[in-house]
Amino acid sequence: MTQFFEDICIGDVLDIGVHTFSPEEIIRYAEKFDPQPYHLSEEAAQQTHFGRLCASGWHTASIYMRLLVLKNQEIERAARQRGAPIALIGPSPGLEELKWRLPVFAGDTISYKRCVSGKTESRSRPDWGIVHGENHGTNQNGETVFSFKSNVFVQRSPR
Amino acid sequence: MTQFFEDICIGDVLDIGVHTFSPEEIIRYAEKFDPQPYHLSEEAAQQTHFGRLCASGWHTASIYMRLLVLKNQEIERAARQRGAPIALIGPSPGLEELKWRLPVFAGDTISYKRCVSGKTESRSRPDWGIVHGENHGTNQNGETVFSFKSNVFVQRSPR
Repeated sequence: MTQFFEDICIGDVLDIGVHTFSPEEIIRYAEKFDPQPYHLSEEAAQQTHFGRLCASGWHTASIYMRLLVLKNQEIERAARQRGAPIALIGPSPGLEELKWRLPVFAGDTISYKRCVSGKTESRSRPDWGIVHGENHGTNQNGETVFSFKSNVFVQRSPR
Repeated sequence: MTQFFEDICIGDVLDIGVHTFSPEEIIRYAEKFDPQPYHLSEEAAQQTHFGRLCASGWHTASIYMRLLVLKNQEIERAARQRGAPIALIGPSPGLEELKWRLPVFAGDTISYKRCVSGKTESRSRPDWGIVHGENHGTNQNGETVFSFKSNVFVQRSPR
């Protein structure tokens, strides 16, 4: 996001990026952060209700973050190149309704998107507004596997 | 958690574990999942509003998961050794109010706890209940740095 609060519209969609989860990276993440059988090996996963190797929910979230940071850096670079002003982004008051709706299996390709669902002017910080977003990860079959609602402070236009 | 729904009490506290965030692991996580300057090097962080190297919020969450899995495995092993029955844990309907309240700086030691805040009998799944929890990460100064509300399906006692 490089836009000021006033320039962001409800309904705006950001294509954050696409990621295919390889078995190797699923296992590597799980060994460090979520060592449960269905994240650690195909053989062990077959003995569980998942039936197949699948990614930790926090891995799915971590990849969302990776793609969002890279996308924002790309948008900022492009804005700088054309001499456009870049709005400051403030802290997030937190996330809501973080859900892992379906497993992300090894080999699945997840597309992440954010849709602006609302805007609130900040009373306590008149130079800032809060942008509300609906975030989704969707697999190659069009099924939503991951979703949450985000809130972030965005600078208001100095104009 | 190895206890059945009926045996879990509101107010029960689980000490999930303690973790000290080294600069090396903060940088390693950030390179993979959150490549922003304040997570990538002490020097770059000094140029930002954080002032010092600090962990990605998703890294703080990932370590919560690591410690929770290890703690649950330890509790299950102990229950098995004494021949106690182990309740099944079902899927989570999702998390609420995920907040990163203060930065986790390099060298900080975070203690993670979960407190049972409520219980709901499932109408649609009579063999299961939902246990609601308040989860906190607290630094060495007693400040809450990370929190969220969890919900998880827990098997009801077959007795």
